[in-house]
Amino acid sequence: MHKEILEDIGEKELINRLGKFMPKNQISDDCALIKTKNEKLVVNTDSLVENVHFNDITICPQDLGRKAVVSNISDLLSSGSKKTLGITISLILPARTEWIWVEKLYKGINKALKEYGGIILGGDCSKGNEKVISITAFGIQGELELRRNACKPGDIILTTGIHGLSKLGFMIKNKIKLDNNVSLSERLISKSVEHFCRPHVYPNFLKNLLQTRSNKKIRRIGCTDSSDGLFQAIQDLAIASNCKAIINYEKIPKDMDWPEGDKWDKYYFFGGEDYELVFSLPKKWANNLSKIDKNIYEIGYFAIGKPAIEFNDNNKNKLLEESPFKHF
Amino acid sequence: MHKEILEDIGEKELINRLGKFMPKNQISDDCALIKTKNEKLVVNTDSLVENVHFNDITICPQDLGRKAVVSNISDLLSSGSKKTLGITISLILPARTEWIWVEKLYKGINKALKEYGGIILGGDCSKGNEKVISITAFGIQGELELRRNACKPGDIILTTGIHGLSKLGFMIKNKIKLDNNVSLSERLISKSVEHFCRPHVYPNFLKNLLQTRSNKKIRRIGCTDSSDGLFQAIQDLAIASNCKAIINYEKIPKDMDWPEGDKWDKYYFFGGEDYELVFSLPKKWANNLSKIDKNIYEIGYFAIGKPAIEFNDNNKNKLLEESPFKHF
Repeated sequence: MHKEILEDIGEKELINRLGKFMPKNQISDDCALIKTKNEKLVVNTDSLVENVHFNDITICPQDLGRKAVVSNISDLLSSGSKKTLGITISLILPARTEWIWVEKLYKGINKALKEYGGIILGGDCSKGNEKVISITAFGIQGELELRRNACKPGDIILTTGIHGLSKLGFMIKNKIKLDNNVSLSERLISKSVEHFCRPHVYPNFLKNLLQTRSNKKIRRIGCTDSSDGLFQAIQDLAIASNCKAIINYEKIPKDMDWPEGDKWDKYYFFGGEDYELVFSLPKKWANNLSKIDKNIYEIGYFAIGKPAIEFNDNNKNKLLEESPFKHF
Repeated sequence: MHKEILEDIGEKELINRLGKFMPKNQISDDCALIKTKNEKLVVNTDSLVENVHFNDITICPQDLGRKAVVSNISDLLSSGSKKTLGITISLILPARTEWIWVEKLYKGINKALKEYGGIILGGDCSKGNEKVISITAFGIQGELELRRNACKPGDIILTTGIHGLSKLGFMIKNKIKLDNNVSLSERLISKSVEHFCRPHVYPNFLKNLLQTRSNKKIRRIGCTDSSDGLFQAIQDLAIASNCKAIINYEKIPKDMDWPEGDKWDKYYFFGGEDYELVFSLPKKWANNLSKIDKNIYEIGYFAIGKPAIEFNDNNKNKLLEESPFKHF
């Protein structure tokens, strides 16, 4: 069967075809348009690079397109965006890329937009040796400003969901050798691959936050997402807010089949791409929220002190001595 | 001398350093913020890819940074943006990239923003094998909507400035063999290299358009920029507006030293990256505008007919038989 590649199609025809995935009023012009009211737009840009963030073995194009959108929406949510308006897409693709790959990518992109709101506003496509999917997403700032620098000493540190699963899914997909001494349950294997390939975010997070707010005067809370790992997320909050995070190791939510040991703790803390929200709230608010949302866990608190992370169990602090997070 | 490369610096320190090029209120958070009123935002995304759009021989990082912004602002202007708010930057860089290269790129970016307005709103940086600079630029839609599909039969076709110079500059920089039979003037050589490395746009264009408007009821005019070449720009207008462009070859503005011949005509029409505006206006408006702005030339008109380009001098139509524009 003849496989249709981009080199055969040409740039103009490619742009025509991509236009079919866009709303009618946004096609065929130099720029995209966003109608605005008196509000703040929240804007986020994220790129997925072939052989750094993905490859053809680890993820299919439909999941990749969906994930590229989800990673941006996660950042919008972690800033307190109440509504996703849309995205622009900048693609870089090798000339030998098959059209069907691009079509599936766009199907995945539109799947995520259907799930979480927003439309394709515009984009461009260039030739390059490696695939790159750069997405810029636009949301509307809600009533609560979620910011890295808004954590306060005394605040409880919370997280949605469980970490490490995406990293484990990535390693399983890449057939990277795991711990010889443990055998993973089928359930954990399939759940981890699911987390890596088809991550989810929390569109109800902001609504639940507002519903449980004990003091209406509080308009800013500390928050980021764990796209670079739980450790990095807590560290970013601590540095931006200039306070010390004390983590209760026992309260960290782990999957029931997650193995024990330092190696597995490292996958958990430094894995990345889980897209969970990591945030801080005054105690009463934190208690109210974790009662109504069973996906939310209190894992520690912020204290006065130089920006740092400490476990209350001193034996666990050796975990933090080296940070395997290094993308360059 | 030790050259500091990104691999040594690490991603977190790199992000810290890039933060210094940004306004204080935009640093260290997941998203960028744009305050809006009741208006339309004009958004454009453009990527420059190493070995497709640039390489280390053809352009220095400072010029590259400036050009990446200018190419986006050109698209904003061609949609009728009255003010550039700012940009987000998505960089993909090899681990061996020197920090000084990145610093110079940002100096060039800020140079363009100082010239044409706007600030750095945010961005991200990832590792990759080839350098990519993706910029998303934000402007405010002015009173006049400039759109590809707003040309009308009877409209005069106009262009700012002279085409082909950027292509010639690119070829000179890359030592691509030119026509043996012509010797280029020193003036044309340096002007062409200047156009390729340091293109300019027309921030007064919209003001002059409004000032010369003969009929205040006209709110939409046909316009695009010539980033993909003059031919492509006219074709895009003709297709989007569903009419035929008749070009008067004699009226095409050429540099006084531009050589004659089919080869040079092709460089002129298909060159690209000149970032001139190509647009259409009712006759009276066109006359008024070209009188007050000496950089603007009337080069033809739109007529009823299937989307196409024709020269009024039939001998020249063979030029259009093949379009060398092909980025894939």
